Amino acid sequence: MNLFDSTRDLTSQSLGFVTTTLDRAAWRRDDASWQQTAMADPSSRHILICKDTPVLAFQAERLEACFSPARAADLAPSGQSVFLGMDNGVAFFGRHLDTSHFDALKLRTDLKLIDMRSIAMQGLFTPGLINAIGTAKAMLLWHQRHGFCSQCGQPTVAASAGWKRICQACSSEHFPRTDPVVIMLAIDGERCLMGRSPQFPEGRYSCLAGFMEPGETIEDAVRREIFEETGITTGQVRYAQGQPWPFPGSLMIGCLAEATSTEITIDATELADARWFTREEVRLILRGEHPRAISSPPPMAIAHHLMRLFAEG
Amino acid sequence: MNLFDSTRDLTSQSLGFVTTTLDRAAWRRDDASWQQTAMADPSSRHILICKDTPVLAFQAERLEACFSPARAADLAPSGQSVFLGMDNGVAFFGRHLDTSHFDALKLRTDLKLIDMRSIAMQGLFTPGLINAIGTAKAMLLWHQRHGFCSQCGQPTVAASAGWKRICQACSSEHFPRTDPVVIMLAIDGERCLMGRSPQFPEGRYSCLAGFMEPGETIEDAVRREIFEETGITTGQVRYAQGQPWPFPGSLMIGCLAEATSTEITIDATELADARWFTREEVRLILRGEHPRAISSPPPMAIAHHLMRLFAEG
Repeated sequence: MNLFDSTRDLTSQSLGFVTTTLDRAAWRRDDASWQQTAMADPSSRHILICKDTPVLAFQAERLEACFSPARAADLAPSGQSVFLGMDNGVAFFGRHLDTSHFDALKLRTDLKLIDMRSIAMQGLFTPGLINAIGTAKAMLLWHQRHGFCSQCGQPTVAASAGWKRICQACSSEHFPRTDPVVIMLAIDGERCLMGRSPQFPEGRYSCLAGFMEPGETIEDAVRREIFEETGITTGQVRYAQGQPWPFPGSLMIGCLAEATSTEITIDATELADARWFTREEVRLILRGEHPRAISSPPPMAIAHHLMRLFAEG
Repeated sequence: MNLFDSTRDLTSQSLGFVTTTLDRAAWRRDDASWQQTAMADPSSRHILICKDTPVLAFQAERLEACFSPARAADLAPSGQSVFLGMDNGVAFFGRHLDTSHFDALKLRTDLKLIDMRSIAMQGLFTPGLINAIGTAKAMLLWHQRHGFCSQCGQPTVAASAGWKRICQACSSEHFPRTDPVVIMLAIDGERCLMGRSPQFPEGRYSCLAGFMEPGETIEDAVRREIFEETGITTGQVRYAQGQPWPFPGSLMIGCLAEATSTEITIDATELADARWFTREEVRLILRGEHPRAISSPPPMAIAHHLMRLFAEG
């Protein structure tokens, strides 16, 4: 028996942040002199982030996500940098622009600040480059939020090409955080369970989701979140697909769960509504043809792909 | 087609930390007056941790992991507490004992300090209770390491029954961290790839493993770690089973990966050795009958279960 026979490769070009073309080349991270040379190499490419927003070059109606080292050093002379990896011999870096420049940057005609979600939604760059921009954003935001040691309150400094921070007082090492989130459809035969949060646009329904907690398995977290939000109990849980989600730094773990009850009781602090949708309804939603104009999250989101997985049986 | 037909429930009583009997009852977390009443209720059960070590009651050769509220308040009058959840109407709490008492506690004859790993390895309590002790340990260690705000360096205070911390200066909210770790066997037909770290006991081989990084899917992290440590390339990746791992606060994500190369090049900074093992060899290892006394991690570790999954085809 081949263990991999039943594995379907669900990766799709449209799903955001899942396609990577970079070799992270982690063994280079502690080689400071290599880093310095690589960062100054004219062939190196630099992704710039200000606060949580990618800074793009804009010229003759064309957008570029990568800057030369000279232009990057001009725009971001002193900000935090992260070595992202290598692509065909070219080194990629993420660099942070001083937050105080944010408003001034927005006024420049040679630059354009476009939020990460829009970049992914509109597919403004290749999937591999969108992943690299997302990684740069997640990493640089982590640096911004970890300037101090959580153990002793003293300042930390970046090390290992931006892949850790070290406390100058107590020497504690701090690593980037990746928060696992379960996102799932509970399935009752030919129906699946979706909900809408109060902040959703009119008519939008999506998968339920929630942060995992210490002490939980993926399967337990799936069952707990579905039950907390809708009162629906579930049994078997199947992992379907994951997605890095840089808002700010999550790992989405997409699952399907077998419902063992059908009566919904909504947690009104979390959801505005939740209901069962037939497979045919989900097909209509994905085609944008639902009679009551119910819509799905965009294809860049894993929720869309879990809905498609269910719709396609 | 039933989506769940191919799902095997791999949960085993012997695998540590995966079995939970607690309802986390998260909706109670922000009800401070309920918490206060529940914590003082004589039926409530209190799990005590000092530093990272469970404190057990020891009497007449019998070990107990849970204390009454009166005894807990006596031992841990002022430490951090966490509401763990409910089991059949009984509220469970984790409570931290002042670290400075550690050495004195070890001398007491009515108590016994046993490290978490040994408790799980020896199966000293029911699987559900071991999960609760692990969760208490992970959460209380997180509190010890997050007394200060990583954004501004000022002190934080616990809130929501111990499920978050809030900065008193900048109001940032900080949530417990759960670090996803991929752990896997690369499989080349009838052989699987295992390695040994320099710290392993003589003859021990295990699955490869490593922390996930921002921007990665589970599948990419599996392929990256295998390649970094052994030079082996892999294609399809299949999720098999997960495990919460409170050392200090990880989520183990167990996978099988299809090898697409066979020649091993070891990363000597990570591994002392790595090699291919036939299915028959893995069976012998699991039975403790390998001719060269090669041993596996204990059944409480997910590595053991991934080996068993491979051995059983």
